[in-house]
Amino acid sequence: MRRILVIGVGAGDPEHITMQAVTALRQVDVFFVLDKGEVKQELVDLREEILRRYAPDGDYRVVYGRDPERDRTTDAYVEAVDDWRRRRADVCQQMITDELADGQTGAFLVWGDPTLYDSTLAILDDIATRGFELDIEVIPGISSVSALVARHRVPLNQVGKPVQITTGRRLAEHWPSDVDDVVVMLDARTAFTGYQDADIYWGAYIGTPDEILISGKLSEVADEIVAKRAEARQRKGWIMDTYLLRRIQPGQDS
Amino acid sequence: MRRILVIGVGAGDPEHITMQAVTALRQVDVFFVLDKGEVKQELVDLREEILRRYAPDGDYRVVYGRDPERDRTTDAYVEAVDDWRRRRADVCQQMITDELADGQTGAFLVWGDPTLYDSTLAILDDIATRGFELDIEVIPGISSVSALVARHRVPLNQVGKPVQITTGRRLAEHWPSDVDDVVVMLDARTAFTGYQDADIYWGAYIGTPDEILISGKLSEVADEIVAKRAEARQRKGWIMDTYLLRRIQPGQDS
Repeated sequence: MRRILVIGVGAGDPEHITMQAVTALRQVDVFFVLDKGEVKQELVDLREEILRRYAPDGDYRVVYGRDPERDRTTDAYVEAVDDWRRRRADVCQQMITDELADGQTGAFLVWGDPTLYDSTLAILDDIATRGFELDIEVIPGISSVSALVARHRVPLNQVGKPVQITTGRRLAEHWPSDVDDVVVMLDARTAFTGYQDADIYWGAYIGTPDEILISGKLSEVADEIVAKRAEARQRKGWIMDTYLLRRIQPGQDS
Repeated sequence: MRRILVIGVGAGDPEHITMQAVTALRQVDVFFVLDKGEVKQELVDLREEILRRYAPDGDYRVVYGRDPERDRTTDAYVEAVDDWRRRRADVCQQMITDELADGQTGAFLVWGDPTLYDSTLAILDDIATRGFELDIEVIPGISSVSALVARHRVPLNQVGKPVQITTGRRLAEHWPSDVDDVVVMLDARTAFTGYQDADIYWGAYIGTPDEILISGKLSEVADEIVAKRAEARQRKGWIMDTYLLRRIQPGQDS
């Protein structure tokens, strides 16, 4: 039986790592990396920094697999992601078969928390349905959501009230029912610009030296966020951002 | 200016603590504890264990304040919580004034993540509105939600879909609109028993030696959870539990 650890390493600050994750890192024989072939050198550096700091003995190998392309031409989002997941599962299964012996421990390092908008668990689940047995353990990490609101020093939820975590794609369609507080991830379209009566707590590259934080009424700061976001994305070649929207109640002086 | 750290220490496993939290712990002159006067000796022990392990030099003081009672006789939930928060703010402001000198660092240790269904930030915010200036920093922690789904090895959200975090009180009223995935916290009434067509991933005392995990179709495991929950609560005198409900789609073989 091969053991696979899915280790959350936090949202960008190497100090987000937990003691549990450090203990886990030190048990790993092989780290598997799906290489996107993209130029996010900071993320590569950050991963290496984490291993250097917290698994300094270096008694491990790092194995890279080529991350297949997702079909971004289709409107069938879920089907495209399903297909992509299957092809990524093919690559991962091959890496594990080729590189990890029975009784050894492999690991995937995941930014943020492995359970929140990350595909690693779905990929491993796909592999499991093929009858390829793996002993999987998940180490929770500080999510970009937790890191965002911590940096803004605001609670994620209001007293006794719900909060919804969703995508930019969905927020662009409509404000979700039954909630005043919405966290948005994976928003390439700045869907917050479609709304007015909310406070926004926005952050990019949270926990890293490039961190940007902006908060305020949407009507006052939306343009600034759009501009700063475009500028940063242009300059660095990529962006990771997240935000909380808190609907302003009628009559409330926010 | 007095500095106050609000430090998330994770969901019950001392190893949930982050490196950032450990660094923070070691800067603290005074830890403030609102003492509920309840018999949750395990939680007291766990807090002391965290300080013993991760701030072993012990160059700090622990100051206890008497946590005021919340009015549980009223149906006006939000007002009762508001009033409670103000009285807790009174106690905290007094402790900080009496025990923390200018230039010193105080801290509140918070179970899970300080931004998720915890009142410490609201209490400090209340104090700030009185013109009592504090320099506040929030250290994110592993929430009971992250820990729950990690232990069950399931993602919190489905691909591209939203997830809502809510309370038992609200779930008892109706299933939230627009979401198939709902995390429930603070549920003293086992509101999941009002539903059938969902999978449940339930956990109590997550990350501790007393951890209980149960998952399956609600129609098959709800009774077992209710019984185990009542038994554990009786035996230990308290319970902390959380669960994820994932609605089963018509025609889906879960």
